[in-house]
Amino acid sequence: MGATSELARFAVETGWRDLPAEVARAARRCVVNVLGVALHAAGDPSIAILLRTFAAEGGAPRATVWGTPQRGSLQQAALANGYLAHLDDFDDTHFPTVLHPSAPAVPAAVALAEAGARSGADLLAAAALGIEVSCRVAVGVHPWHYDAGWHITGTAGVFGAAVAAGKLLGLDAPAMTTCLGIAGTQAAGVREVFGTMSKALHAGRAAQSGVLAALLAAGGFTAPPAILEGRRGFGAVLSGRYDFERATAGLGRDWEILNNGLKPYACGVVCHPLIDAARVLRERPGVRPEAVTAIEARVHPLVLELVDRPRIDSGLDGKFSVQHCLAAGLVDGAAGPAQFETARVRDPLLTRLRGAVRLTRDDALAEEAATVRLVLEDGQTLEHHVAHASGSPQNPLSDGDLNRKFGGLAGRTLPEDRVGPLLDALWRLDTLDALPALDGRGPAR
Amino acid sequence: MGATSELARFAVETGWRDLPAEVARAARRCVVNVLGVALHAAGDPSIAILLRTFAAEGGAPRATVWGTPQRGSLQQAALANGYLAHLDDFDDTHFPTVLHPSAPAVPAAVALAEAGARSGADLLAAAALGIEVSCRVAVGVHPWHYDAGWHITGTAGVFGAAVAAGKLLGLDAPAMTTCLGIAGTQAAGVREVFGTMSKALHAGRAAQSGVLAALLAAGGFTAPPAILEGRRGFGAVLSGRYDFERATAGLGRDWEILNNGLKPYACGVVCHPLIDAARVLRERPGVRPEAVTAIEARVHPLVLELVDRPRIDSGLDGKFSVQHCLAAGLVDGAAGPAQFETARVRDPLLTRLRGAVRLTRDDALAEEAATVRLVLEDGQTLEHHVAHASGSPQNPLSDGDLNRKFGGLAGRTLPEDRVGPLLDALWRLDTLDALPALDGRGPAR
Repeated sequence: MGATSELARFAVETGWRDLPAEVARAARRCVVNVLGVALHAAGDPSIAILLRTFAAEGGAPRATVWGTPQRGSLQQAALANGYLAHLDDFDDTHFPTVLHPSAPAVPAAVALAEAGARSGADLLAAAALGIEVSCRVAVGVHPWHYDAGWHITGTAGVFGAAVAAGKLLGLDAPAMTTCLGIAGTQAAGVREVFGTMSKALHAGRAAQSGVLAALLAAGGFTAPPAILEGRRGFGAVLSGRYDFERATAGLGRDWEILNNGLKPYACGVVCHPLIDAARVLRERPGVRPEAVTAIEARVHPLVLELVDRPRIDSGLDGKFSVQHCLAAGLVDGAAGPAQFETARVRDPLLTRLRGAVRLTRDDALAEEAATVRLVLEDGQTLEHHVAHASGSPQNPLSDGDLNRKFGGLAGRTLPEDRVGPLLDALWRLDTLDALPALDGRGPAR
Repeated sequence: MGATSELARFAVETGWRDLPAEVARAARRCVVNVLGVALHAAGDPSIAILLRTFAAEGGAPRATVWGTPQRGSLQQAALANGYLAHLDDFDDTHFPTVLHPSAPAVPAAVALAEAGARSGADLLAAAALGIEVSCRVAVGVHPWHYDAGWHITGTAGVFGAAVAAGKLLGLDAPAMTTCLGIAGTQAAGVREVFGTMSKALHAGRAAQSGVLAALLAAGGFTAPPAILEGRRGFGAVLSGRYDFERATAGLGRDWEILNNGLKPYACGVVCHPLIDAARVLRERPGVRPEAVTAIEARVHPLVLELVDRPRIDSGLDGKFSVQHCLAAGLVDGAAGPAQFETARVRDPLLTRLRGAVRLTRDDALAEEAATVRLVLEDGQTLEHHVAHASGSPQNPLSDGDLNRKFGGLAGRTLPEDRVGPLLDALWRLDTLDALPALDGRGPAR
């Protein structure tokens, strides 16, 4: 059996009760995290562009655009919620591949679960298996695929959304294989668009493409049986090299979702160890940001590839500037949404400190590691090394930190008195017959 | 100025009256051809899968799904009509790149023109410029992109749909550049799905992605300025090599739409010279298909890459079997939709003749050339060489043949008394204030 069929059969045959306790816990945490992140993003003015487009297009109001008063068709909700889930770069990251697996899979699952009045356990199983399959597809093409310039969340992400949607539509194994075929040939998204709204659109389109694939497969649409490993399939065409034996190794025994991390900071994971280090150094005796004359950082090569932007002018740029992340970590001791507001990015002290950053590539470092050295105006130097950034699988966000993250985010679009009960419901999702309400106020005025 | 901006500005600044007469004529012929092809395809049962999906999704009925009683949102109509335009592999082909430019561009243009009550000239200008830009993008990445396994109609096609839609939304040059950015990062479609419904879905998704890109760009969504030539853009990521100077060379003076050909046969163009040759040979004295013991063909390498399928069992397979095309040309003297019905594919004589085909690769042949030699049971051999297949730019379909093609196709879903008046209206489209009705009976029962 080929990798595509094997992943399809695994997804079809695995139910909520089959998941090991740690996998079920990881799935719950993914859902809590991505909903918190998306509910915050729903306050961003850019979502209004999507909502206006949907209003003009019309559509049966079957699923909620999270954090807004609007409902849309399955595909519209999947698109908008995928966009929201990834807009702030605050969603989860599969550390081995830098895939953000929840942003495509969870919106697809929630849209179908909501429209089909399915239970919380059905939703969680669909989300868990969608996340697992997309992470495994990503493992099969990493690092070649990402290095070629693909945004793996848009590409491998469609497989996760397809599995999540197909699972809730009750596809059998052959139909799920077809569903992966229809989804896989829609895989898209290049890294050229990083720093624009189109980056988050990748996750939205992946969610939508997965939902469309599942609907078409359920209706009898046709696609080839080996979209991953076929001669002109996803691996051969979208990746210089690939090895889908890695994608199916240990299936059902080992779980890639356990290598997925929840972010403490609202920016790309490659910046996280640097923020950790800056936060530690600012607490050292005698350190004042005003007195820092140089910030020397030894970094993983991807930092230079992705986020070397010393001169920036907008909040969105800030998420792709390791210089800004270091400066914000040092001055604010934080890297939440507030640090990526345009007004904060333009702060004179932060601007000066961004200019004081010196990066050195260190090929021996893991992606979640970094070393930062501060030089103070009196000549004193202080150094800190981070081996495993907070939020990485080896140094995970605690449930308490996750609750605080959710609370700090969801209040932007939810009334205060709904935040706590929603969070409580999400932790108990597998015991609920129906999903909690996810609507809200929508974009900030 | 980069290639992306240059193509965007060209599309924005060029109007119907700026087009040379031969370009205007080519655009009219593209629209006549693709509508005839799509109206026939609307009788295929598979469209019902899309229509059921749309019915469940809902949507404001703003544009017609051609050849059916159903209307849908702009995106739904673009998706369905792009699918119909390419389903029978009977749409136009840009010979230098094997792009099918009308299938994504014309549905995007028609949906917006219909919903916006725009004139026929506005529609034709949008279609012409969409076709021109997508052909030019294709030239910039050919042959590397197609050789890598991409279905160029799905990928380069999004740029044509985006230009067509953006033109009808009145985007200015910066917004059109953004529109190309949003569209380009949705480019998708691998050749693994050839021989399934998902191949035609590529054209549909390209049309839809272009419409979505234009709607979002009009609403203020952001994307980078150099999606084609950027470091992590379309060329770098989706093509081993690329040269976008070829995409902009002679812009406004030379027209790639003039290298676009309309097919006489309902299958891939690489089969066309072989069908031509078979049709000539069957008219030679003494030739009876029953008496043919071998069919020896010297062919372009792409024939072996794409359509070497001696054993087939369905009509759709037949379109991807050069053996079937040769047999049908010899027995029926035709390769229209009737020759690609499953019942016809299973005919015993055709089946025997498919087994009698011997292919020899000839790297010196152009794509539109081939040599066929028949061996008869009495030992006699007959040979014919085709230098330029019918339907190629050097041997174009006449207007009369195009009218006969349209007439033979559109009647499947249109009442007989509407076919002639519709054809007449399409030839006069640039003088009409509104588009003619394109609805019909829908899938065959």
